[in-house]
Amino acid sequence: MAALSWVESANGGSSDFPLENLPYGVFSTAGGEPRCGVAIGDFVLDVAALEATGVIGLDGGPYLTEPRWNPLMAADPTVWAALRERLTSLLTEGSADRATVEPHLVPLAEATLHMPFRVSEYTDFYAGKHHAFNVGTMYRGPENALPANWLSIPIGYNGRASSVVVSGTEVVRPWGQVKRPDEELPRFAPAARFDIELEFGTIVGRPSKGMVSVAEADEMIFGYVLLNDWSARDIQTWEYQPLGPFQAKATATTISPWIVTRAALEAFRTPTPERERPLLPYLREPRPLGYDIALEVGLTPAGGTETIISRSNVRELYYSAAQQLAHHTTCGCPMSTGDLLGSGTISGPEKGNRGSLLELSWNGKEPVELADGKTRTFIEDGDRLTLRGYAQGPGYRIGFGECTGVVVPAIDLPEWASETGAAAAS
Amino acid sequence: MAALSWVESANGGSSDFPLENLPYGVFSTAGGEPRCGVAIGDFVLDVAALEATGVIGLDGGPYLTEPRWNPLMAADPTVWAALRERLTSLLTEGSADRATVEPHLVPLAEATLHMPFRVSEYTDFYAGKHHAFNVGTMYRGPENALPANWLSIPIGYNGRASSVVVSGTEVVRPWGQVKRPDEELPRFAPAARFDIELEFGTIVGRPSKGMVSVAEADEMIFGYVLLNDWSARDIQTWEYQPLGPFQAKATATTISPWIVTRAALEAFRTPTPERERPLLPYLREPRPLGYDIALEVGLTPAGGTETIISRSNVRELYYSAAQQLAHHTTCGCPMSTGDLLGSGTISGPEKGNRGSLLELSWNGKEPVELADGKTRTFIEDGDRLTLRGYAQGPGYRIGFGECTGVVVPAIDLPEWASETGAAAAS
Repeated sequence: MAALSWVESANGGSSDFPLENLPYGVFSTAGGEPRCGVAIGDFVLDVAALEATGVIGLDGGPYLTEPRWNPLMAADPTVWAALRERLTSLLTEGSADRATVEPHLVPLAEATLHMPFRVSEYTDFYAGKHHAFNVGTMYRGPENALPANWLSIPIGYNGRASSVVVSGTEVVRPWGQVKRPDEELPRFAPAARFDIELEFGTIVGRPSKGMVSVAEADEMIFGYVLLNDWSARDIQTWEYQPLGPFQAKATATTISPWIVTRAALEAFRTPTPERERPLLPYLREPRPLGYDIALEVGLTPAGGTETIISRSNVRELYYSAAQQLAHHTTCGCPMSTGDLLGSGTISGPEKGNRGSLLELSWNGKEPVELADGKTRTFIEDGDRLTLRGYAQGPGYRIGFGECTGVVVPAIDLPEWASETGAAAAS
Repeated sequence: MAALSWVESANGGSSDFPLENLPYGVFSTAGGEPRCGVAIGDFVLDVAALEATGVIGLDGGPYLTEPRWNPLMAADPTVWAALRERLTSLLTEGSADRATVEPHLVPLAEATLHMPFRVSEYTDFYAGKHHAFNVGTMYRGPENALPANWLSIPIGYNGRASSVVVSGTEVVRPWGQVKRPDEELPRFAPAARFDIELEFGTIVGRPSKGMVSVAEADEMIFGYVLLNDWSARDIQTWEYQPLGPFQAKATATTISPWIVTRAALEAFRTPTPERERPLLPYLREPRPLGYDIALEVGLTPAGGTETIISRSNVRELYYSAAQQLAHHTTCGCPMSTGDLLGSGTISGPEKGNRGSLLELSWNGKEPVELADGKTRTFIEDGDRLTLRGYAQGPGYRIGFGECTGVVVPAIDLPEWASETGAAAAS
């Protein structure tokens, strides 16, 4: 049974942001500075103002004076719990504080959303088994599809924090070195095989020094976002051996604008998939640490109609976020407040569950059918890609808000990058 | 002809820190707080104090109020030049300011050195051709040694900024997943093949948005350090396919404590090696952008004598720092003040020029002979590894100071990572 808020639009089960959610973002309104806010129904609550006026008071605070949640994320988890409890109390139906709080509600429709936190470092994992199998099959055949280490290690690589952007940011098609199999030498060209990756993002709150257990890792996690790891497949194919993806993944990584807290998702824990090979002790889960969160991907051509091209679920991930984070610390690597971990592409078992166009079009060989008779193998200029996700509770759902971006054409080639310009410079 | 300073120990050609160098660090003395300093001869000049008292005044300043050089690194290059000019004037023989400045000199022997800047993100390249060829030969044979893309792309991967430490920091041998070829499944164990990588580190001053040319990239660079990219070869072998090195490289990356400015090294430019395949226009250099900087690596067993196990030179790098940085921006990846780029291991053509124990011992098959009749294949607990480097000018040399670290034993296995502990938790 859903809890009721005096913010009517939060009730009824159709909002992403009921009283059970209370996700954290950063917003601004026309002419105003960005500040911390909490989504409730069709509104953002200006919690920075509530803290400044003393309506919210937290041990060791203030935490919300900057337009980012990092100071709170670095605080003790008892402070995280205290804020959630206070917000729930302020917003519950019948709250004596309604008259004080209500003036600080801003319609979501009037708010511009910004990056909710400063990303310290960004790591991208590869924990979707169907994705790893599909991609491996395309490149190495089904017998050698899954790398030998895949069932033992949550494989990950370091990505580029500076390229993480908030939902709504335009994504400029990248230039890069590309080479088709029939070409002898690479060309410098805009990526022709630009793609999405449907992922779940984990945000580290408490830092670590030294190796941590899976249970400790789980407690370090502050919250989650949807994450689209935009990928230039043709750049990646040419560059990734032997040291992994680099420029193919550094154009942009888009996250949804609201940090959905770990507390809000606790009711949606589910076991990770059955182990096909026993895990080493340090990776074993003390309890179910996966999540049941429905996901979908929409593609909208410029001026066209959206088609849902994929439906998947976070529960497909073979390794939980806590397992990934624990593995990340094995060598002694310090983890910091604001670190962001991408899960890897979350594909499901069926064709309609695939989380990238690479898989959906099977490496460009099977065009994906869209509304209005259109088709796609990879992203075309003007396409809007949108990830959505929610956990369904009894009479309510915990939503993430949209994680969206439009791909715009590559920039013109600078003169110095052209054959004539470089000759002049030399 | 070397310029003379009234700081006598800076003159004579044997100091790493003559008047021509003026490298930037962060230091503290007993009981004091870390602050910005400049090395001159056997002293550190407390430039934070000189700025605070108005002896140094820079447009848009103050820049030196925090114990890190990032604020100055983010400033306009005219400010970089103004500071260098002012410091040169203050420290030159016959300076009228000697009486004002001299009280702010602290003997280097009494100073503790700290990280000179906050590392934003860390990227490691693979631009040493002899190294790439040696490693490729060991793993794939000499015919397939150099990856197909190597002569076209400055290959790089993202590393972990949180693990970058200053010279002198102890390095704890990491745990990780390892598997020998004769083993069916991996074990969790301390790395048995722990290694160094002799590298040159580049520090980004001015940030970028969008693609930049090689010439523009060069102008973004603030300075350089020596860099040891500690590497667990056995962890790397098992984890690195298909997405590259991860935990194998995240235990620690040690940098020398002084930022040697680009200005100080300008006299030591040298062409990068002859191209064996034409570069794409965006990577062509407008002028020689390599450096002639001699390098060496010393290994000192606990309580023993140091042996110089390798001598190399930065001029061996096939791609310059400016080429690496320009490539880093091709996809639109924003580069930030404080980004650190490792060059890749700098090996030379002969056995005695190899920049890692992996190469020196040829994958453990040819032990390296040390003083006192000792040998090494990889690092043993208690070993101190020290990188040194300098550019030799007429009557002076531009040195980096030592980049050193002692490897200490791995921590005891936590109970939760043991078979019995994990069983109890499940």
